[in-house]
Amino acid sequence: MSLHAVILAGGSGTRFWPLSRAKKPKQFLALVTGRTLIAETFLRVEPLCSSARTWVVCGTDHVEAVRKALPGLPPAHLVVEPAARNTAPAIGLACFHALREDRDATLMVLPSDHHIARPDAFRGALSAAARACANGDLLTLGIDPTRPETGYGYLRRGAEKSAGVFAVETFVEKPDAATARRYLQDPAYSWNAGIFVFRADAMLDALRRHLPQVHETLTRGGDFAALRPISIDYGVMEPESQTTRRIALVSGDFGWSDVGSFAALPEVRTLDPRGNALSGDALAIDCDDCVVLAEGGRLVAALGLRGLCVVDADDALLVIPRERAQDVRAIVDALKAQGRGEKL
Amino acid sequence: MSLHAVILAGGSGTRFWPLSRAKKPKQFLALVTGRTLIAETFLRVEPLCSSARTWVVCGTDHVEAVRKALPGLPPAHLVVEPAARNTAPAIGLACFHALREDRDATLMVLPSDHHIARPDAFRGALSAAARACANGDLLTLGIDPTRPETGYGYLRRGAEKSAGVFAVETFVEKPDAATARRYLQDPAYSWNAGIFVFRADAMLDALRRHLPQVHETLTRGGDFAALRPISIDYGVMEPESQTTRRIALVSGDFGWSDVGSFAALPEVRTLDPRGNALSGDALAIDCDDCVVLAEGGRLVAALGLRGLCVVDADDALLVIPRERAQDVRAIVDALKAQGRGEKL
Repeated sequence: MSLHAVILAGGSGTRFWPLSRAKKPKQFLALVTGRTLIAETFLRVEPLCSSARTWVVCGTDHVEAVRKALPGLPPAHLVVEPAARNTAPAIGLACFHALREDRDATLMVLPSDHHIARPDAFRGALSAAARACANGDLLTLGIDPTRPETGYGYLRRGAEKSAGVFAVETFVEKPDAATARRYLQDPAYSWNAGIFVFRADAMLDALRRHLPQVHETLTRGGDFAALRPISIDYGVMEPESQTTRRIALVSGDFGWSDVGSFAALPEVRTLDPRGNALSGDALAIDCDDCVVLAEGGRLVAALGLRGLCVVDADDALLVIPRERAQDVRAIVDALKAQGRGEKL
Repeated sequence: MSLHAVILAGGSGTRFWPLSRAKKPKQFLALVTGRTLIAETFLRVEPLCSSARTWVVCGTDHVEAVRKALPGLPPAHLVVEPAARNTAPAIGLACFHALREDRDATLMVLPSDHHIARPDAFRGALSAAARACANGDLLTLGIDPTRPETGYGYLRRGAEKSAGVFAVETFVEKPDAATARRYLQDPAYSWNAGIFVFRADAMLDALRRHLPQVHETLTRGGDFAALRPISIDYGVMEPESQTTRRIALVSGDFGWSDVGSFAALPEVRTLDPRGNALSGDALAIDCDDCVVLAEGGRLVAALGLRGLCVVDADDALLVIPRERAQDVRAIVDALKAQGRGEKL
């Protein structure tokens, strides 16, 4: 087995504005530790596969940001998507590149913007998945749910294929609240975190069967930008699970978080005694459960606040209640409508 | 009658931090209109007395700020207190200077950091007081209370001395809530706003009787800094009211506000349709009854806030609930304790 890491860094988003910008999306922010999320991702898997076998897939806009964040990445391993077409084309591209270098490549596909509190357990699960995929199975990592989350997809496991490795019976859409509460009680359900382990040749085979246009574009040459955007879950994993029993999962509790918004930071960061997540020159007096990020080089003084996010960047400042942190996109939309691209 | 205006600009305070600083206290901030409070004060009385008869008393630290705020003030009318000793010595100093220039001077003493929504009515009351003080009485302007305020002193009026001019029977300390509610219903009570009108020679006479050290220091020369701090109310007006009937008041409703903290701004500023007081590059989405001052040259975006003050200055930012706006001094104290004078 020849293990490679593929870090998907094509994501963009607005939920961390004003820290995140078009040129600097979430994966390039140091939201949890002193390092960027992508650098943490890179270092997290280094014990399993050296940087010489690590790959990053990103868009043209973020090549510089990746180089800066990951100086140890081999330049030839920075794979630039000609256009953002979701994870299936991106993963196909990574398979194609890795196979050119290593006919025996096994890929661990990792989102670049997640946090893992227990990296040892995480690496253990990746190793187990890497062993289990030697037969050509496509493995996914399931996360043991810790709350009745309605914002994620779920995996339902079926028969045990080998010790700790289960066939994936169903890919489940985002459930309603009652269903999510039921899933939380049922050990058969895991969160689908978009983490995959497979032999590159097995994935290209699956792409040929389920997404022949993607396969043809990659292997015979073609217009990548003309491909329709599709995720690997919808495009390959789910149809494959319905036709073969080659989709399997290893699940566990790794302290995983997708760090979905500013509201999630208190769950993953070191807090002060009153539950506040602070950074930079932040002064919080009589505050509880707040996020106060002073990233603009100036003093941010907060007094008497409850459950509020205050985020100061260089040229813009955000104040929003934690329970509305997802709505930051309304601000981004308003700025777009005002033609204020310089702030986006 | 020879009418002069004396603007008291010796005040310092912390309730408008981070906009106000040691070198730039509240009177030098444009908190209500596009002009500073002291410039508004200066312009408000110009119809009654030309700038050639306007005086400003301030401390050495604020000479430059006064010159910048009031370019029309005659340089010789900027009276610098050798030390801050509260209003009695400051007013005595102004009397002394004005009398040297004009033996018949009648002074209107005005705090430099208040707001008056109805300046015509205010000037009418000042004119009535100026007429009434020709006999040597010391006049004060009373404000008709509009709420059961426990933070102010009150004046209780007695017999009518002439049309609309009443003897001041008592100076009342800050009352408790029940008493303040009673005063609100009783037309005999006015707020004491620290606005006075008197002949300068009459005030010097009163100072000689009640504060002989202040009088002697001013008239014979002496160490101003050695004087004990005392207000004109405690030092002159109140004892004079108990021994003579020369203390009188004219009262009215002028839309007066002492602009006591950021929380007061919605009462005196133009608001958006949801009751927010905004300045600079402030973007408020789904906010109610907030104060969002973007005075630091950068975008301040607020979403989903209720009754919060967000104040961005160049090098520091404050977020505090309106009902705790008075507690900003706790932040200033913490910064002092941390030796961070550069922010004060």
